[in-house]
Parts: sequence; C-alpha cells; structure tokens
Amino acid sequence: MSQTYQAKVYVTLRPSVLDPAGTAVQSGLQHLGYDNVGPVRIGKYVELTLTAADESDARTQLDRMCDQLLANPVIENYRFELTPNP
Amino acid sequence: MSQTYQAKVYVTLRPSVLDPAGTAVQSGLQHLGYDNVGPVRIGKYVELTLTAADESDARTQLDRMCDQLLANPVIENYRFELTPNP
Repeated sequence: MSQTYQAKVYVTLRPSVLDPAGTAVQSGLQHLGYDNVGPVRIGKYVELTLTAADESDARTQLDRMCDQLLANPVIENYRFELTPNP
Repeated sequence: MSQTYQAKVYVTLRPSVLDPAGTAVQSGLQHLGYDNVGPVRIGKYVELTLTAADESDARTQLDRMCDQLLANPVIENYRFELTPNP
C-alpha cells in the first residue's frame, strides 16, 4: 500500500556563502524607507507531491532528490517537511 | 522599546499561474528515475530581521514590504512567520 505525501522543501545558502541577491533586496528595502531591516537571505521553496511506501521511504527519496537536483550541497543547505495527503 | 524579529517569508505562485521551472524540475526528477513525483511548484523563501515597536507593527510593515518588493501580488501569494529574537 503506497501513500501520497506533500513535501515542502526549503533550500538556503550556507551561512558562509555570500548572498548578493539578498544584499540587493536589503538595500532596495532601505531605499523604500525600511531602514529597520537587517540582513536578508534568499532561498528557494519547493512544493511537490510524491508517493512512497511509508514516511521513512519518502524521507530517503527526498534526501536523494535534494542532493541530486533540488539543492547544490556545496553551497546550500536544505530541510523539508512531509505531510501525508488524505 | 523596540524589538527585533526574525521573519521567514514564503512567496509562491498563485495556483492559476503556470510554473515552467516547476515543470522542468518535475521532468528532471523523472529522468533521474523518480517517476513517483507529482506536480512541483517553485517559490521563494526569504529570511530577514527587522526591528519594530511590537508584533502587530512588524506584521504591518512586512505586509507592505511583500506587496512593494518581495512578491508580485499579480501572480504571487505570500505568507510569513515572525519570531521575536531573544
């Protein structure tokens, strides 16, 4: 019996990696008058559905997908949340 | 007394808007052998810090920042989480 899961994947730059897009957004916000805004970091947010035998199988597969395609492990970290679809 | 907040902003395409990048990722995953993966949608994930008088002030300001710069309200939705920094 396989189960469908909804996955939310958050991909962020490692803290040691510079984020020029984030710096641009921060300075854009400050030019709009939001001078109370500190550092901005920009990442990716991926939603997908997958079917798997159970939650641990789904986690293993998602880990591999992130390492192979969704994230660049050299410069990015990722984490995800899984919810079973009804 | 002002307080610093950590904000996590999730920007997603409206459901009615096509997501070619998501479709490309889905087909990439399928070519890697993950044929159990359904539709993929790609959004942005923004982390920032801001100082505000209180949480309701911070929410108001973040709403304006999202409408003006972080999201494109015509094609995107956004939601955010606020946590007070210690």
